[in-house]
Amino acid sequence: MLNPKNMKKPLLFTPGPTPLPPETSLAMAQPIDYHRSPAAAALIQDVLEKLKHVFQTENDVLCLTTSGTGAMEGAVANLLCRGDKVLVIRSGKFGERWSDICTAYGVEVIPIHVTWGESVEPSVVASHLTAYPEVKAVFATLCETSTGALHDIEALAQLTQVRPTLLVVDAVSALGADDLQMDTWGVDAVVSCSQKGLMTPPGIAFASLNARAWEAVARADLPKYYLDFRKARDAGSEGSTPYTPAITLIHALQASLNLLCAEGIRNTIARHARLAQATRSAIAALGLQPFATRPANTLTSIRLPAEVDGKAFIALMREKHGITYAGGQSQLRGKIARIAHLGWINENDVIVAIAAFERGLVEVGCKLPLGAGVAAAQEVLSR
Amino acid sequence: MLNPKNMKKPLLFTPGPTPLPPETSLAMAQPIDYHRSPAAAALIQDVLEKLKHVFQTENDVLCLTTSGTGAMEGAVANLLCRGDKVLVIRSGKFGERWSDICTAYGVEVIPIHVTWGESVEPSVVASHLTAYPEVKAVFATLCETSTGALHDIEALAQLTQVRPTLLVVDAVSALGADDLQMDTWGVDAVVSCSQKGLMTPPGIAFASLNARAWEAVARADLPKYYLDFRKARDAGSEGSTPYTPAITLIHALQASLNLLCAEGIRNTIARHARLAQATRSAIAALGLQPFATRPANTLTSIRLPAEVDGKAFIALMREKHGITYAGGQSQLRGKIARIAHLGWINENDVIVAIAAFERGLVEVGCKLPLGAGVAAAQEVLSR
Repeated sequence: MLNPKNMKKPLLFTPGPTPLPPETSLAMAQPIDYHRSPAAAALIQDVLEKLKHVFQTENDVLCLTTSGTGAMEGAVANLLCRGDKVLVIRSGKFGERWSDICTAYGVEVIPIHVTWGESVEPSVVASHLTAYPEVKAVFATLCETSTGALHDIEALAQLTQVRPTLLVVDAVSALGADDLQMDTWGVDAVVSCSQKGLMTPPGIAFASLNARAWEAVARADLPKYYLDFRKARDAGSEGSTPYTPAITLIHALQASLNLLCAEGIRNTIARHARLAQATRSAIAALGLQPFATRPANTLTSIRLPAEVDGKAFIALMREKHGITYAGGQSQLRGKIARIAHLGWINENDVIVAIAAFERGLVEVGCKLPLGAGVAAAQEVLSR
Repeated sequence: MLNPKNMKKPLLFTPGPTPLPPETSLAMAQPIDYHRSPAAAALIQDVLEKLKHVFQTENDVLCLTTSGTGAMEGAVANLLCRGDKVLVIRSGKFGERWSDICTAYGVEVIPIHVTWGESVEPSVVASHLTAYPEVKAVFATLCETSTGALHDIEALAQLTQVRPTLLVVDAVSALGADDLQMDTWGVDAVVSCSQKGLMTPPGIAFASLNARAWEAVARADLPKYYLDFRKARDAGSEGSTPYTPAITLIHALQASLNLLCAEGIRNTIARHARLAQATRSAIAALGLQPFATRPANTLTSIRLPAEVDGKAFIALMREKHGITYAGGQSQLRGKIARIAHLGWINENDVIVAIAAFERGLVEVGCKLPLGAGVAAAQEVLSR
């Protein structure tokens, strides 16, 4: 990865994996331990308890050895029955993933199509709930990572709480960056994973269910074994897991959770909000448009000038500047850049991300006032 | 884990996780990288290629972000249809797991019951295949880790190769320790994982299918999304994965595969065979019985003297001597000790495992000729 002609210090501004604190990296370099020892049980119990703080819930948090998609599939397989109808909010690649998983299991999807970059209008969800009172669940996304759009989960929960319909939220990328008050808002099920706001390598995922959702689990008939949430809950209560856990990653997670719990989840979210605001101010000062109409704290998606080849720009930044932004996915390939300010990121990191973005765009031929983005970010960060 | 009264150096003789080479541990302490970069694609391609050497196959090897059970479930969900009949060899906890997974998916299981500690007679499988010619697959276990018994996969493959029935082998614990010549023997599907012979932390699992098995995948109708083998194969061919991989663990795996490929799989298996033989000689010299009638190279299960409380013995060894053996599972809880000589283990490690075993048994009141086990092992290791 190092360019021999240059002292490279690679920096990640991707919406997962996010950079690792040194405590977290070094936790993984320790000799491995046996996952069925008393010490491992204490580790697992500590991690599951601290995850509740990040999930803002008193419900159990389950730990699965999968990436985020495994937890999404687990939510479908554990909550539903074959032939059930559900609403899926499709506003990007990850909303579509909910649809695809449901369809794979024979669950009937009623899609709510939202233009990519926009967020769902709660009134549209309300009218669908009225039109289809039989739907068992609404599948939503806190931050649609493919577009950078934030969805108003609190408003959706107001709709589902008064109905027998469950609200299931993909908080894979946004947990810890955008607010999600599971208990206060009344969200029924939340899934997330390790390599985003939780500052841990990919490979472990999480799910939390409230009492209503556990009642649905008792009725669900879709096939599952490895992803069976009941087994994960029962084992977790004893500091264990149904199958061999990724114990090394759990040690890493503990190190990162110690940092997050010391910061406090409300402060963590406020930090992300500030960094996102600085980034958006910078983008505006450069005369560029955010792609999302209601942007998340997790990442900022930027519509690239039409003359810029987005794929080449992302590669240039990585290879010449040692900076990894994410490009566009699916229909947005080559059209947007996505700068994540997520996880172990602070003000200084965001300045670097913005400054490099300015230089890179000038290098690919854009006319930009060099420094204007950084200046605008400085204004926000000096408040 | 450290006892302040004593300089402890914890040692693992468990059948997973196994000890990590320092190269492997340190690979995980590097800054994390983005899994969709050209460097990550080269890493994934390198690892998938080297895995073929360990699997002794020219077939693609798929990499999944799960522990071993996820790959087992993937084999069921990708190879079968609802209502299919299969034979499952049940000779311990992991044979039973094949049954449980199949049952969860509505696959009809015809069990072949084998007394725990024994290995299946191929003639019994042959008569079942004759009696139930409609079965789609035979599910077998290379090393039944709960008992230490090795199964004659080569003989089973001779039976299935001449029939339309697939042979699906759980090589979770034994890959790299006990011989499994996937291509030469004609095994249709093999699953394994990272934290055993592959000397890598838990969290990634593998599957390899031959052409016959891929034909079954095309017909299979069981629901799957995260575990879809076709998506893993297609992405793998481009050095990618369908969903975010545990990139840190893949770096670790590369470090360990480099060591294994330098040793060469035939030498790796021969090393394990020698260490297993030394351990069995030691056990016999101490007047103890191996639990398995046909023991694997992976681990040695030892029937403990009736007066020994196995759970207390395992705890004593861990807490006083810093040595972790595995105890018995399910019906064998408290009755056996399992000493794994698996992964990054050599002659000196096995001497330590045996010597500590002798001292521990004497401490719990057994009458043993101290040093006799070590002497017998020395004889084997000096040949």
